[in-house]
Amino acid sequence: AEAQDAATVNELMEPLHPADIADLLEQVDSSERAAILKVHEIDGETLSELDESIREEVFDLLSPGVLSDAVRELESDDVVDIIEDLEDDQQKAILDALEDNDRLAVQQALSYPEYSAGRLMQREVVAGPEHWTVGEAIDWLRSREDLPDDFYHVTLVDPRYHPVGNVTLGKILGHRRDVKLKDIAEDSFRTIEATEKEADVAYAFNQYHLISAPVVDEDGKLVGVITIDDAMIVLEEEAEEDILRLAGVGDESSLSDKVVATTRRRAPWLAVNLATAIIASLVISLFEDTIAQYVALAVLMPIVASMGGNAGTQSLTVAVRAIATKDLTGSNVLRVIRREVLVGTVNGVIFAVVMGLVGWVWFGAPMLGAVIAAAMIINLVVAGLAGTVIPVVLDRLKVDPALASGTFVTTVTDVVGFFAFLGLAAVVLL
Amino acid sequence: AEAQDAATVNELMEPLHPADIADLLEQVDSSERAAILKVHEIDGETLSELDESIREEVFDLLSPGVLSDAVRELESDDVVDIIEDLEDDQQKAILDALEDNDRLAVQQALSYPEYSAGRLMQREVVAGPEHWTVGEAIDWLRSREDLPDDFYHVTLVDPRYHPVGNVTLGKILGHRRDVKLKDIAEDSFRTIEATEKEADVAYAFNQYHLISAPVVDEDGKLVGVITIDDAMIVLEEEAEEDILRLAGVGDESSLSDKVVATTRRRAPWLAVNLATAIIASLVISLFEDTIAQYVALAVLMPIVASMGGNAGTQSLTVAVRAIATKDLTGSNVLRVIRREVLVGTVNGVIFAVVMGLVGWVWFGAPMLGAVIAAAMIINLVVAGLAGTVIPVVLDRLKVDPALASGTFVTTVTDVVGFFAFLGLAAVVLL
Repeated sequence: AEAQDAATVNELMEPLHPADIADLLEQVDSSERAAILKVHEIDGETLSELDESIREEVFDLLSPGVLSDAVRELESDDVVDIIEDLEDDQQKAILDALEDNDRLAVQQALSYPEYSAGRLMQREVVAGPEHWTVGEAIDWLRSREDLPDDFYHVTLVDPRYHPVGNVTLGKILGHRRDVKLKDIAEDSFRTIEATEKEADVAYAFNQYHLISAPVVDEDGKLVGVITIDDAMIVLEEEAEEDILRLAGVGDESSLSDKVVATTRRRAPWLAVNLATAIIASLVISLFEDTIAQYVALAVLMPIVASMGGNAGTQSLTVAVRAIATKDLTGSNVLRVIRREVLVGTVNGVIFAVVMGLVGWVWFGAPMLGAVIAAAMIINLVVAGLAGTVIPVVLDRLKVDPALASGTFVTTVTDVVGFFAFLGLAAVVLL
Repeated sequence: AEAQDAATVNELMEPLHPADIADLLEQVDSSERAAILKVHEIDGETLSELDESIREEVFDLLSPGVLSDAVRELESDDVVDIIEDLEDDQQKAILDALEDNDRLAVQQALSYPEYSAGRLMQREVVAGPEHWTVGEAIDWLRSREDLPDDFYHVTLVDPRYHPVGNVTLGKILGHRRDVKLKDIAEDSFRTIEATEKEADVAYAFNQYHLISAPVVDEDGKLVGVITIDDAMIVLEEEAEEDILRLAGVGDESSLSDKVVATTRRRAPWLAVNLATAIIASLVISLFEDTIAQYVALAVLMPIVASMGGNAGTQSLTVAVRAIATKDLTGSNVLRVIRREVLVGTVNGVIFAVVMGLVGWVWFGAPMLGAVIAAAMIINLVVAGLAGTVIPVVLDRLKVDPALASGTFVTTVTDVVGFFAFLGLAAVVLL
């Protein structure tokens, strides 16, 4: 029966794309994963599609033979991606499985900083001298046995091996054999430094619609190439990171994380939130006597703070994203702050009127309505201001605004919300 | 002096990439924009890089001649992208400027639903019969005058013009003239239906590392091609949309939006938040007598609600993203819910201990500490449950979970937070 199960599993997996097999392995639980891997021989591509959170577990389940076969199929950038987060002994096992020149390529890539272009690039480049013609390029490409699986340009290099231009394969195919490559090179040509941050690389691909770009070392020599599919993955990861950081989830890697790992990642954020909530409570405690005399204040006070928190989150999210996409710069920051303050004022007035009436009708006290209305305007203006200024300042201080803005902004809107409402109430109502 | 200014402006803009010129136009204010456009002749590519929010304004500033020259430079998919959101008279002006067959292509694209593959695709395809050899393909490509600027595959079609395979240009260049194209076609080959949603197209490109894919009509005939750069833009937009929706900013398009437009987009979300805040206040008002007797409750009660709201936001953000990336499916939903509830329990216990001690020490009342501790555990467990179940249910009901989850989850955590804390206090302390 077991042999039959094995045949069934393999039959079901056969038509699947490696990315889908990897997803399947992520979605089942540990024991099912072990059962599948016992009967299904995993290949290199599936390995490189696996989410980090289960990679170590899967590697431990594989026999050394299957693992080295799988890894040997991969290009150097994929091997780097797989092993950079592994523990030393697993890393060593995989490096040992590689052929000598592949191992060297991987080790060189690992010598670049994490999250740099050097880690992201493929080392297999297709380059030729700048004086080549279309015919010479085609003859040379045909003669090579080891062309990369995917390449989109022939990069032209000068005698010092510095890239000087990029010719798309479409242009090479569309021109006669005697046309010079440099005459059909792309107008806009950019090189990427190997030490550049991968987030900046992804930005450049997106902004300038690049399809592949040569990577150079500190001497300007061509050392690799980055293609758009790698940039797309980074772009997706950056957006994902912003979403999770804005929500106070840190860099949670995936749904397959265990309870302990997840708790450990989220608890610090809740601790920070607890600290800010206690600060807000301290503000409330300043007005204990006022509340004791007028309990309606306790009923209404969370509304002002909550509205401020929401409006502040709106402003800060827009600001954080605009900073990430380089749309918010020194040249328009004052105008954006002005806009957010005005939006806060207008929304403040709208919801002051609504809430003023609600407070009046609910508790039959017009002055209570007036107090909550005034506090609402104050807090929404402050929310617009803090929601923009705080992320901008954090960014200038080289702190990721996605990571820290939320805490600061809600602390401000909580404190201002409770203080304005209860303070005005103490003065006006008692 | 004006002529000199004009020369300076043009000199400064000359070396810039169209994407950067577009950014610059977005970052200055309206009057500066008008001044620049008076002296700088905008080209088609810059036009297609402009953010929607200022597109209409810029179009109104351009003379009909400049506008038609600019539009005529563009490929059909870029024209579609520019005009789909314009008002009818502006749309007509641009269509009239196009040559007959370009206009037809644009009109056909506009006949597909918004946000569909048909709107996204380029109509210029590079396709040949399935029996071609490498040599025949190269000869044909060289003979054509009208090759697209960017293409990455030759698509093989059968006699009914149904796509049957994709050959990368790299493979064509790497093989001898007599090799058959179908022998070097890619292993994995996917076609996209013209009516497919663009979000699903972007997902397929990202999941299967596609570089370009043929688009077919309802009869399976080849009608266009989508390339990875278009998919990358959609992927970025989808992530952006999720971030903004999660923050209750709707689909704010950009920093250059005016105060009125921004207020109009954000106010409805604040109104929804006000409604949920009032619901929370109603819960508090049930316990007015309790609070009047024990004012410390008013000081501490926002803490439990705030912690629940934060923990709920953590869970729901992870769930919303996992739904968007198709990582959360029917096969693992129960396991994920179980994990979130367990994480909520563990964090609940941790912060119950911390807050129980704080409450005890601060107010010198051990039972008050016990009440807040119990309420904390209850609310954090509920937060984990609601934060996962609510987005999953909304998704099943075909409501975008990014758009609506936040409101529901915070309503639940507010209500449960206040009710558990004040209710337990009423029973235990009085």
